[in-house]
Amino acid sequence: MTYKRTSARKKIPDKFPSAFQNQLAVDQKAVEEFLKDILSSLKSPPRFLGALFYGALSGGKRLRPFLFLQAVRTLGGNDVSALPVAGALELVHCYSLIHDDLPSMDNAKLRRGIATSHIKFDEATALLAGNALFTLATEVLARASFIPKIQVMLIGRLMRASGAEGMMAGQYLDLMGEKNAFSLEEITHMQALKTGALIEAALLMACDLVEASREEREALSTYGRCLGLAFQIRDDLLDHKNMPHLTGKDGGHDTQKSTFVSLLGVDEASDECDRLIQKALKSLDIFGDKAHLFQQAAHFIVERKH
Amino acid sequence: MTYKRTSARKKIPDKFPSAFQNQLAVDQKAVEEFLKDILSSLKSPPRFLGALFYGALSGGKRLRPFLFLQAVRTLGGNDVSALPVAGALELVHCYSLIHDDLPSMDNAKLRRGIATSHIKFDEATALLAGNALFTLATEVLARASFIPKIQVMLIGRLMRASGAEGMMAGQYLDLMGEKNAFSLEEITHMQALKTGALIEAALLMACDLVEASREEREALSTYGRCLGLAFQIRDDLLDHKNMPHLTGKDGGHDTQKSTFVSLLGVDEASDECDRLIQKALKSLDIFGDKAHLFQQAAHFIVERKH
Repeated sequence: MTYKRTSARKKIPDKFPSAFQNQLAVDQKAVEEFLKDILSSLKSPPRFLGALFYGALSGGKRLRPFLFLQAVRTLGGNDVSALPVAGALELVHCYSLIHDDLPSMDNAKLRRGIATSHIKFDEATALLAGNALFTLATEVLARASFIPKIQVMLIGRLMRASGAEGMMAGQYLDLMGEKNAFSLEEITHMQALKTGALIEAALLMACDLVEASREEREALSTYGRCLGLAFQIRDDLLDHKNMPHLTGKDGGHDTQKSTFVSLLGVDEASDECDRLIQKALKSLDIFGDKAHLFQQAAHFIVERKH
Repeated sequence: MTYKRTSARKKIPDKFPSAFQNQLAVDQKAVEEFLKDILSSLKSPPRFLGALFYGALSGGKRLRPFLFLQAVRTLGGNDVSALPVAGALELVHCYSLIHDDLPSMDNAKLRRGIATSHIKFDEATALLAGNALFTLATEVLARASFIPKIQVMLIGRLMRASGAEGMMAGQYLDLMGEKNAFSLEEITHMQALKTGALIEAALLMACDLVEASREEREALSTYGRCLGLAFQIRDDLLDHKNMPHLTGKDGGHDTQKSTFVSLLGVDEASDECDRLIQKALKSLDIFGDKAHLFQQAAHFIVERKH
C-alpha cells in the first residue's frame, strides 16, 4: 500500500534538490513577518486580535504565497513589492481553514498539531476571527501601492476564487459529499473549487501583477490546476496509508466519504497523481531553466510524507 | 413607558411626509432587482445558490442602500450608475445578519418573521452562504465600471468598516457583553462598531464616489454616526416596550445583557435618542433643502413602531 513509483516518474529531472525548500522557507518567513506587521497594526479588542494572530500565525507551509511569489520571480517581477498579495492569499487560506474546522463543518479539534481556533477560543470568536482575516485580505490588497487598475483586477480574481463560484462552492459540495457518495467527476470538480481555485488564483494573480502574456497565463494556470489536484490525491494516499481501514479523507473522523483512493484504488490514484505532475511539469516548458523551483515544488508534492 | 416626545422634537420640520418612504421603496426595489440579477448570474450548486437568495432577498428595509443612494443624489451624483455600491452594502449587511443569527452567536430562529438561514437550510450552509454574500459584495465593487482609483477606495472603506476594526470587532464585543455587563461608554463603542461603522461607510462611500468636499464628508459622517446610534437606542426602547420585564435587547432571548434602556432608563434613553436626531439634523444644514429626505429618514428612526 506504499506509494508506487511508476516508470514515468523516473523521467522527472531532479537537479537542485534543496533550492525549492530553501526558497519556501524564505518566502514563509517573509509572509509571516508581513502578516505579523499587519496584525500588530490593528486596533481590535485584545482577545479578538489574539484569535486573529492564532488563526494566521500558527504554522503552515505557506504554499500559496510561495507559488505566487515564485510565479512573480519566474515572470521577471519584483517579489518584495508583491508581498501584500502573498499575504492576502495566505489570509484567505487561513480564514478558510478556521471556518472549515468549525463544529458545523469538519468539527476538527486539531490543526497542525495544536488546538483549532474554536477549541482554543470559542466558536463565535473563531467564526468572527475567520471573517476578519478574510476582510483583512481584501483590505491589504486595497491598500497596497500597485496601479489601481491592477489592484481591482487582483481583488476581483481573489474574490471570484473565494466565493460562490469558487472556494465556498467547493466547501459546500465537500459537506454535501459526506451525505451522498461522490463520483470521480464530482470529487474532481469539488476539489478544483475547494482548493484548486485559490491555488490557480495565486498563479494568475502573479500574471495580473506582472502583466504576463497569454501563453504564460495558460502555462501557470495549467500548472496550478494540476498541482492542486495532485496535492489532494497525495493527501488521500497518505491518509489511506496511515489509516488503511478507512476510506474517508480524515482518518480520525467517522465519515465514510468518497476519496480519490476509495474511488480509484491506491495504484490508479498514484498513477493519476503522477500523470498530473507530468502535465504540470510539461506546462512549465516555456519558462526553460527559470522554472526549476516550480519543478521541485511538483516533486515535493508527490514525495512528501505528511 | 411609551415613547416620550420632548419639546425639542416638536421643532423638527416635517414637510413632504411621505417622500422618504416613497424613495425608500424605490431604492429597495432597485437594489433587490440588482441583487436578483447578480445572484441569478452565479453558477453555483442550486441549493447553495438558494441559500444565497434566501439570505439576500427575504425582506429588509434596505436602509444602507437608501442612505448611500440618497447621499449620492444629495451630492449631485448619478444614483443609477451607483447601484452596485448600494448592492455591495446590502450584501455585507445580509452576511452580517446570517452570521449573527447562527447558534454560536445569537442563536436566533426567526428573522423578519421567517426562519433564519441556518434553520431553513443548515448551519454549515448558512455559514458558507454568508461568506459567499460577503465575497460577492467585494466582487461587485471590483467589477463595477467606476474609475479604478475610486473602486479601490470604495473597497478599502467597505473592508475597514466590516473588519477587525469595525463590524467584526463590534459583533465580538456584543458577544462578550453577554458575559460582562457593559458600561454606557462600552455599549456606545460596541454599537458604533457593530452597526455604526457600516452606516457611516455607506455615507462616506457616496462621498468617495462623487468626490465630495471635506465639509460634505464631515456632515454626512456625523449624520450617519448619530442616526446609527439613535436607531439602536430606538430598538432598545421598542424591545423594552414590547417586553418590559426584560432588559435584554432581544426580548425573546434569555440574556440579561446591558442595553441603553437598562443603563439609562426609558426617559433618559428617549432623550438621548432625540439629542442624537437633533445633532444628525443639524449636520444636514449645509445641504439646505436638498437634505429633506435625510431629515425625514431621521424622523422615521424615532417614530417607527418596529
